[in-house]
This record gives sequence, C-alpha cells and structure tokens, in this order.
Amino acid sequence: MAAKLYDLELSGNCYKVRLLCALLDVPLEIIPVDFLSGAHKKAPLIDLNPFGEIPIFQDGDLVLRDSQAILVYVARKWGGESWLPTDPAGLAQVSQWLMMAENEIARGPNDARLHDKFGYKLDIERARNNAARVFGLLEKRLAKAHWLALDRPTIADIACMPYVALGHEGGVPPDGFPAVTSWVGRVKALPGFIGMPAI
Amino acid sequence: MAAKLYDLELSGNCYKVRLLCALLDVPLEIIPVDFLSGAHKKAPLIDLNPFGEIPIFQDGDLVLRDSQAILVYVARKWGGESWLPTDPAGLAQVSQWLMMAENEIARGPNDARLHDKFGYKLDIERARNNAARVFGLLEKRLAKAHWLALDRPTIADIACMPYVALGHEGGVPPDGFPAVTSWVGRVKALPGFIGMPAI
Repeated sequence: MAAKLYDLELSGNCYKVRLLCALLDVPLEIIPVDFLSGAHKKAPLIDLNPFGEIPIFQDGDLVLRDSQAILVYVARKWGGESWLPTDPAGLAQVSQWLMMAENEIARGPNDARLHDKFGYKLDIERARNNAARVFGLLEKRLAKAHWLALDRPTIADIACMPYVALGHEGGVPPDGFPAVTSWVGRVKALPGFIGMPAI
Repeated sequence: MAAKLYDLELSGNCYKVRLLCALLDVPLEIIPVDFLSGAHKKAPLIDLNPFGEIPIFQDGDLVLRDSQAILVYVARKWGGESWLPTDPAGLAQVSQWLMMAENEIARGPNDARLHDKFGYKLDIERARNNAARVFGLLEKRLAKAHWLALDRPTIADIACMPYVALGHEGGVPPDGFPAVTSWVGRVKALPGFIGMPAI
C-alpha cells in the first residue's frame, strides 16, 4: 500500500515531500486537504497531527509531521545512504541545512510569501531582512560547492530549495545571488524532478 | 584530542551540547566566547560559522554549527543507537522533536527569555503565545509517554528540555503543565546530568 501524503498543492513544505518521492520513485497517495476551511485544524487531521499543520505523512501505522522529519524518513527508507548518510559527520552536515530550512528559511522567504500571497499578519520587514540574510548565507556556501551539505544532492537541497525558488512570491526573488540561482537550476535538472505552481 | 565547544554559559543552545556530552561522558574543551562584545560575529569565529552564532563544535577538521545538528553528531559518534537510532521510523520520530526545538521552542520560550533577560527587541506577546502553544503540545505528548520521541530518552529530550525549563526567565514558566514538569524532572534525574544557571 502506498504511503499517504495529506497535501496542499501550494505549500512548499508539502512540495518538498512530493519532490523527494518523485526523485526516489516512491509511490504516494496524495490526499488534498481543504486548507482554506481549516481542515488541518479539525478532526480527523488534528488527531493525526496535534500541531494542526500539513504535510502529514502516513506509512502503515506510522504517522509523521514536519516536512523536514518526513524527508528524513523517506530518505532513510527508500534512498539508501545517498540522500541522507548515517555516518556522524555526513548526517550532521545534512542536518545543519535541514535546521536552516526549519528556522531561517521559514522565518525569511517563507514568511514573506505567507504575507504577500496568503495575507498572513506578520512583520514583513523582518521577514524580508531574514530572507536577504538567508540568500547571503546560501550564496557563501554555494559559491564554493555545487550542493549544500555534501558533494552530491541530499535532502538538505530538497529542504532548502522550494522557498528560495518561491521567493518572488514574497517580494524577495534571489536575483542578486548567482550561485543560489545556479543551484536552484541544478536541483531542477535532477532526473525525475517535478515542479509546483510558480516553480 | 578533545572536541572543542565554543560556548556561552547562559545559552540554552550551548548547554544542550554540554549536557549530552556529560551524559555520554565525552570529554569537551570548552572555549568561552565573549558574546557581549560580539566575538561570534567577528573573525576568527565568523569564519568557523558564517551564521554568526554559537554554539560552534569542532572535532578535528570538522566544524559544525546549530545546536540540534551538533546533538546529532555527538549522538551518532558516541551514543550508539540509543540516543539517536538510524532506522527510518526512529530517526524520523526523533527528528520531529529536533524540529520543534529549532522552530516552535525557539520562537516561544526561547524568544520570551531573549526579550526579558537579554533585552532583545521582538514581539513578546507573540513569543508568549507561542510558548503557551508549545507547552500544550508537549503536555499532550507527555501525558501519555515518558519521553518525547521513543520509549527511552533521546536527543529529542535534550534538545527540547532546556528552554522549557528556562521558561520562568521569559515570564512563561510551564507551571500549569504537570506532565511537562515531570518530564523536566526525569531529564534532570538522568545519570551524569549537569545543570546550567537557572536550571
């Protein structure tokens, strides 16, 4: 039986999961969530994820929340050591960038998009400043490496790319950051790549 | 040669690393950082961590930033499968709570403490509301389990406990959450436990 993804097409966090599963050729049953009516905050979804958020991933009896944690699961179960190695240094180096996706990218280009595209009330100045910092930090790394964490693509790249590539929907396109732009292009060129609206 | 931790005694994020190393009996060379004068934002530290933050962890040639990623490294290198298992479900279940430490806890009790104790300019109302949500979510889990991720202590507990236990320094003690309070006590009772100021 295919794993289930409780999904929203316009969510970059849901897209990450769809993208990794496409790259690894993992079949997925997509269950669209009626986000506008708040289905993720009511039964039965709130019982699957008390955080009241999507994506939610279900594989047999296992239910997982948080897009980064779901990437960890998919990579470990279906991706061998390639997308998420288990040696201490490799796992920690990938984890550093998963944390950037969870923290700085969420509070930067993701927040800016939530404000501009979805009308969230938040400090848009702060979000844009955070986004500029994020792009600068990514540029610094990607000016000297093709991929974020290791010498090959990993879930670090899958976790960080979407909200960077969606920056223009929050008024913060990564235009002045050539290494970042090239890296987004490299992710898009991976065999099996799929897009989402605006990527 | 012992691994090095660029450290601030009052930082809960640095404390997490000290705590896990103490529990695993890993020797650590502590290098105090002059945080007030901004040493973490200048050479030589900014070259070790372009994010301009501490903790920074150095083990031989490997340099790591981000407290959660450092916990991953220490657990994988010195903790066997116990503190961070590598099977897909176990690794993902621990990762879910590492992400909560990186995101919701950082934007909740940690931000509230940064405001109250260190004078950071941020939306304190939002931080306190986030903290209440965090405590509620932890309570829900801990009302039916002794530990956050699995049936034993893992780095999920080490990552999440400090800023919860420091909540009173941000005006948000987890007093009305008995399962959370009991869990903090269980972490404090682990063999080899060390504290920090206010914990």
